[in-house]
Amino acid sequence: MATALASDLTTLTLGAPLALDSGKQLANVELAYETYGELNADKSNAILIFHALTGDQFVAKTHPLTGKPGWWDRMVGPGKPIDTARYHVICANVIGSCLGSTGPASAAQDGEPYGMRFPVITIRDMVRAQVGLLDALGIERLHAVVGGSMGGMQALSFAANFPGRTERVLAIATTARHSAQNIAFHEVGRQAIMADPDWEGGDYYARGKGPEKGLAVARMAAHITYLSEQGLTDKFGRQLQDRDAKSFGFDADFQVESYLRYQGLAFTDRFDANSYLYITRAMDYFDLAEEHGGLLADAFREASDTRFCVVSFDTDWLYPTSESRNVVHALNAVAAPVSFVELSAPFGHDSFLLECPALDRVVKGFLG
Amino acid sequence: MATALASDLTTLTLGAPLALDSGKQLANVELAYETYGELNADKSNAILIFHALTGDQFVAKTHPLTGKPGWWDRMVGPGKPIDTARYHVICANVIGSCLGSTGPASAAQDGEPYGMRFPVITIRDMVRAQVGLLDALGIERLHAVVGGSMGGMQALSFAANFPGRTERVLAIATTARHSAQNIAFHEVGRQAIMADPDWEGGDYYARGKGPEKGLAVARMAAHITYLSEQGLTDKFGRQLQDRDAKSFGFDADFQVESYLRYQGLAFTDRFDANSYLYITRAMDYFDLAEEHGGLLADAFREASDTRFCVVSFDTDWLYPTSESRNVVHALNAVAAPVSFVELSAPFGHDSFLLECPALDRVVKGFLG
Repeated sequence: MATALASDLTTLTLGAPLALDSGKQLANVELAYETYGELNADKSNAILIFHALTGDQFVAKTHPLTGKPGWWDRMVGPGKPIDTARYHVICANVIGSCLGSTGPASAAQDGEPYGMRFPVITIRDMVRAQVGLLDALGIERLHAVVGGSMGGMQALSFAANFPGRTERVLAIATTARHSAQNIAFHEVGRQAIMADPDWEGGDYYARGKGPEKGLAVARMAAHITYLSEQGLTDKFGRQLQDRDAKSFGFDADFQVESYLRYQGLAFTDRFDANSYLYITRAMDYFDLAEEHGGLLADAFREASDTRFCVVSFDTDWLYPTSESRNVVHALNAVAAPVSFVELSAPFGHDSFLLECPALDRVVKGFLG
Repeated sequence: MATALASDLTTLTLGAPLALDSGKQLANVELAYETYGELNADKSNAILIFHALTGDQFVAKTHPLTGKPGWWDRMVGPGKPIDTARYHVICANVIGSCLGSTGPASAAQDGEPYGMRFPVITIRDMVRAQVGLLDALGIERLHAVVGGSMGGMQALSFAANFPGRTERVLAIATTARHSAQNIAFHEVGRQAIMADPDWEGGDYYARGKGPEKGLAVARMAAHITYLSEQGLTDKFGRQLQDRDAKSFGFDADFQVESYLRYQGLAFTDRFDANSYLYITRAMDYFDLAEEHGGLLADAFREASDTRFCVVSFDTDWLYPTSESRNVVHALNAVAAPVSFVELSAPFGHDSFLLECPALDRVVKGFLG
C-alpha cells in the first residue's frame, strides 16, 4: 500500500456535495486529474478520457508510484491517435479510487479514513463527478469522450445522462451491463480481499499495511480475464520458469504462474484494496438499460445526434463482441449515427491497451 | 474440514510401495473404493470410472459427508447408461485426495499427517495406484475406463501407460495437457489457500480447522470455469437475491454472488485444502505428449487396438473442443479406432455431470 505525494497530483474540489445514486451525498469531493495539450480559445477541442478499473489520470505521464509510462502513452500524445497537438485531453481519477480523488482512503468528516463508511457508488456517480470537473473548467461541450472497459461504461453513461455535453462517444471493449459471469469474477476478488485478516473490515489504514495477499489473489483472478486463452498460450504455453524440469513442488514452476504472482504483488504496491471493492461493486451495479426503464434504446434517446463509435475485440471474453452489438442495436433503434467494428487482436480484453494498429486507425479516424 | 468415518469406507492397502513420477516412493498406499454391480465369472465386465478433481468413489451411492446422491448417480446404476445390471463398476478415490485414499491428511511414517511432506504426484501416479487396485482385485483387462475432466485425463493416461488393460477408453470433457489458462486458474486457487493464515504451511490438521476462507475462494474461482457464460446468464442473469432493489452495500445482492458464496462454503465441509493443492498440481503437470517424447501420437502407439470415444461440449471453455480434437488427431495418427463427438449442452464444462440425454446415448452406445 503506497500513497502518491500531494506534489504529484493536480486536484480540484467540487463546489457542491455530490448527489449519489444510493440517495446519499458525498461532500468535499476532490478530483485528481491531468491534462495534456492546450485548450483552445472557445474550449471546443477537449477530449475526456475515462480510465478503467485500476487505471488513473496518468494516461500519458509517468506514474508517480510505479515510475512507468502512462497507461495509454501509446495512444495519447503529439501526433498520436489522440493527438495532443490538436486536442486538450483531460483524464480524472474516478471517485472511489486511490490516486488523489475522494475514495475509501480519504478522510471523512471526522478526519479518519472512510474505510467501509465510504458510500457505495455507481458508474453514473463517477461520471457526475467528472461533469462537475468539466463545469469547473468551463467546458460546456466536449469534442469527444473516450474510454475502454470501465472507461467505456462511463462513456456510455455520459452519453445517456449528459447527452448535450459531447459531440462524440468512443466506447471500446465494453458493455452496457455487467453479466452474471462478470459479477462472479468480481465477487471472487472481493471475497479474497475480505477473507484476508489484514483487511480488518476495511479499517487498515492506520496500520499502513492492507490486505495485500487477498488483493494480490483478486488481481490474479481478474488478470486472467483480461487475457485470451490463445494469448496466454502464445506468451507462456507450458514453458518452465528458470528451470529445466518440473520441481515436483509448489514453487512457480511454470512461467504463467510466475507472471501471475508478479502481477498480483506489483498491484498491491499501487492500489488500495477498499478502492478495489468499491469500484468492482460500481461495475457490477452497472446496467444502463435498467437505469432507463429497462430498455437500452431509451438510454440513448436524447443522444441521437451524438456520433458513436463502438469497438470490440474478437478475443475479448470479458466483454465479448455480443455486448458491443447490444449497444449498437440500441443506438440503431434511436437512429443515432454509429460506427461499429470488431477488431482482430490476440490479446483478449487488454487489446485496447496494447499494440493494435487497427485500433489506432479507428480512434484517429473517428476523432477527426 | 470434515473426515469420513472409517465405517463408510472400503479400502485396500497396496502390497508394494508406489513408485512416483517424482522419483520418490509412497509406502503403505491405501485406496478407498466402491463397486457397483456384480463382477462376472471371467472378470471381463469391469468398468473403471475415474473421478474428477473434487470427486470421489461415491459415484452412485450417498456421499458419507454431504448425504447427497453420488456425483454420477444419473449415469451409473441398473438400466442406466453405465448399466450396473450388466457391468461391474469400480471407482477409487485418487491418491492425494481426502476420502479414504492416501493423501496429505494421511499419517506419514512418523504417525503425523503428511501435510506438505506428501510427495507431489501426477495423473500417471494416480493411475498407477488404481492399476495396483485392479491387480489386487485380479482384474486383468477392463471392459472400459471412463472419466470426465480430470477423470478423462486418467483415462487417457491409462490408455497410454497400460494399453493392454482395457478394451475401451471413454474420455469426456478433457484434455491431453493443461493449458496456460488452466494452470493460471489453478494457481489463483492455490495462492488463495496459501494466503490464508489458517493454512499454516499445510500443518493445520491437529487444530481441526483448515484454511477454509482461502479454500472457499479457490473453489469460487474454479467454479466459474466449470460453467458457461450463457449458462450463468440463463440461470442467474442480474437477478437480485431475496430483495427488490440493490442494497448499495457488499452483501450478496445478486443471486450469482449468493450462489458462489454457497458453493465455496459448502466445499470446505467436504474437502481438504492440501488435497486441493496436490490434485491441482497433478493436473497442471499433466502433459501426455511430454511424457512420451513430445509427440502425443506416440503416447497412443501401443494402444492402437483399443477403442476410443472422445466427447466434448460446445460450451466448455475450460477444456474446449479443440483440446479433444487434439487427442483425436493423435489417435488418428496411430490408426486407433476412435469416435469423436462434440455435444451441444448449455452448462459448460459441468455438462458431463448434468442432464444431457445426448451424452447418455453416446455412453450407452459406446459401452455396448
